[in-house]
Amino acid sequence: MRPIGKLVVVGVGLIGGSFAMALRQAQAVEHIVGVGRSRESLETALELGVVDEVSNDWSAALGGAEMVMLAMPVGQTARICEAMAPHLGADTIVTDAGSTKREVVAGLRAHLAPHLARIVPAHPIAGAEQSGVAAATAILFRERKVVVTSLEENEVTAVDRVCWAWRQCGAVVHQMSPEEHDMVFAAVSHLPHVLAYALVHELAERDNAQLLFSYAASGFRDFTRIASSHPEMWRDICGANRLALLAEIDAYMAQLGRLRQLLDSGDGAALEDVFSRARQARNDWIAKYLSN
Amino acid sequence: MRPIGKLVVVGVGLIGGSFAMALRQAQAVEHIVGVGRSRESLETALELGVVDEVSNDWSAALGGAEMVMLAMPVGQTARICEAMAPHLGADTIVTDAGSTKREVVAGLRAHLAPHLARIVPAHPIAGAEQSGVAAATAILFRERKVVVTSLEENEVTAVDRVCWAWRQCGAVVHQMSPEEHDMVFAAVSHLPHVLAYALVHELAERDNAQLLFSYAASGFRDFTRIASSHPEMWRDICGANRLALLAEIDAYMAQLGRLRQLLDSGDGAALEDVFSRARQARNDWIAKYLSN
Repeated sequence: MRPIGKLVVVGVGLIGGSFAMALRQAQAVEHIVGVGRSRESLETALELGVVDEVSNDWSAALGGAEMVMLAMPVGQTARICEAMAPHLGADTIVTDAGSTKREVVAGLRAHLAPHLARIVPAHPIAGAEQSGVAAATAILFRERKVVVTSLEENEVTAVDRVCWAWRQCGAVVHQMSPEEHDMVFAAVSHLPHVLAYALVHELAERDNAQLLFSYAASGFRDFTRIASSHPEMWRDICGANRLALLAEIDAYMAQLGRLRQLLDSGDGAALEDVFSRARQARNDWIAKYLSN
Repeated sequence: MRPIGKLVVVGVGLIGGSFAMALRQAQAVEHIVGVGRSRESLETALELGVVDEVSNDWSAALGGAEMVMLAMPVGQTARICEAMAPHLGADTIVTDAGSTKREVVAGLRAHLAPHLARIVPAHPIAGAEQSGVAAATAILFRERKVVVTSLEENEVTAVDRVCWAWRQCGAVVHQMSPEEHDMVFAAVSHLPHVLAYALVHELAERDNAQLLFSYAASGFRDFTRIASSHPEMWRDICGANRLALLAEIDAYMAQLGRLRQLLDSGDGAALEDVFSRARQARNDWIAKYLSN
């Protein structure tokens, strides 16, 4: 396919910036416009060469755009779509990189109804505890999964174009429904983030927090890595996937309650069995999907 | 100081093996005897040159030993000490590497009472999700903390000798009481292990476990790394530090319940505040104690 002519990235942070950089490196884009709330962040993106221009004027930014990538926190979806609507060209493809899909799709449907043929939601399964454009890199999505949750209204050419763009970034494209996506990621991503935030917050609030932290080591570092994630982004994700996440928290608390009971009753054999099965499941997963 | 003459390592796994290798590399030991349950593991230790000889005969193993390192799972402390007692020389120094200290110290006191002047318990804050002697390395303890929980009966020379041995491994020696040690590590190590095991087990038991795992990514990998830890070792740690760990689980469940409530009531601002404070606390910790 030919390169994308004009790409508009809304929210030039880690994800939006990395998308821009990866496409540029693949020579898959000609011109990139950055749009965002933070003037400072946009200036940094411009200085780093992540975008070619920045704009706060929707009309100018969207004029002649071939593709718009929405990469701001998902809680801003409705507001941004509402602002974009009057200026969005009939041929412009819109995609996003939000970590939740059901509520994002609802926002896109509500505010960009005339454009649904060319609105292709997606979620790249990549990230880091760093955030912001300074942490962006052209290789962030390489060999990572991208879940495309295409709409029934989508034109095939629009879906193909978005999938092509992600493949240019080195990503592997998967397809799911928004509902299935949110159910899966509540379990394997959103819940672990809440659990990690909860642990660090629990310890940080104590009088002896400094003593505790001074003895925390590499196991604690890795367990809590995701607690360094972007608070506003994760507030929005939790809110947008509230029901699935509440169900996951409840299931987890029940599981933890069962382990507590085994420990309380001194049932070492049952505890070891749980630990063994967990280790086996994790090691199988690592062997199958990841080089650790 | 002169090298340790004869070192007996009981339990030649990741920790015991790494202690032997580090001392050997520092030319801080002359002869190393491995003792353990698993013939296969001892043969591997011998083949790898981690130990110079292996033995199942306490009398032969302990004869002329200058130092004994107990590095088997902490649940075996009483049994091993009972077996060693009749053969332990009057001048032999005994130390251990157990991840809990209060119950280990009780076992040492109960079964090795005549030797308390030279029994110096300790806990190296190092590990990996790998276990076994094949994962042992001479650099495991380099720049890691070792908590020495010396006894009031200890001779200064015995404490100095154990601290010296750890420093030869590259470790930084700290001192705590067994009770304080167990309280601190229940919070920053034992609780996170239980939380990680609980998450993996919770997901692994579901009908759609394979679907869920197929979309788990690097955040999940790091969060659950400690769920690949040695199940028997962690069964013993949980059992030996049961009361402190139960209190930590309760505090954590209360914290998680509060976050659940914020999510359920849609209080995004409060949720973001918790996430922000957790991130700040973790980032401060990383900056102060660890190069991430």
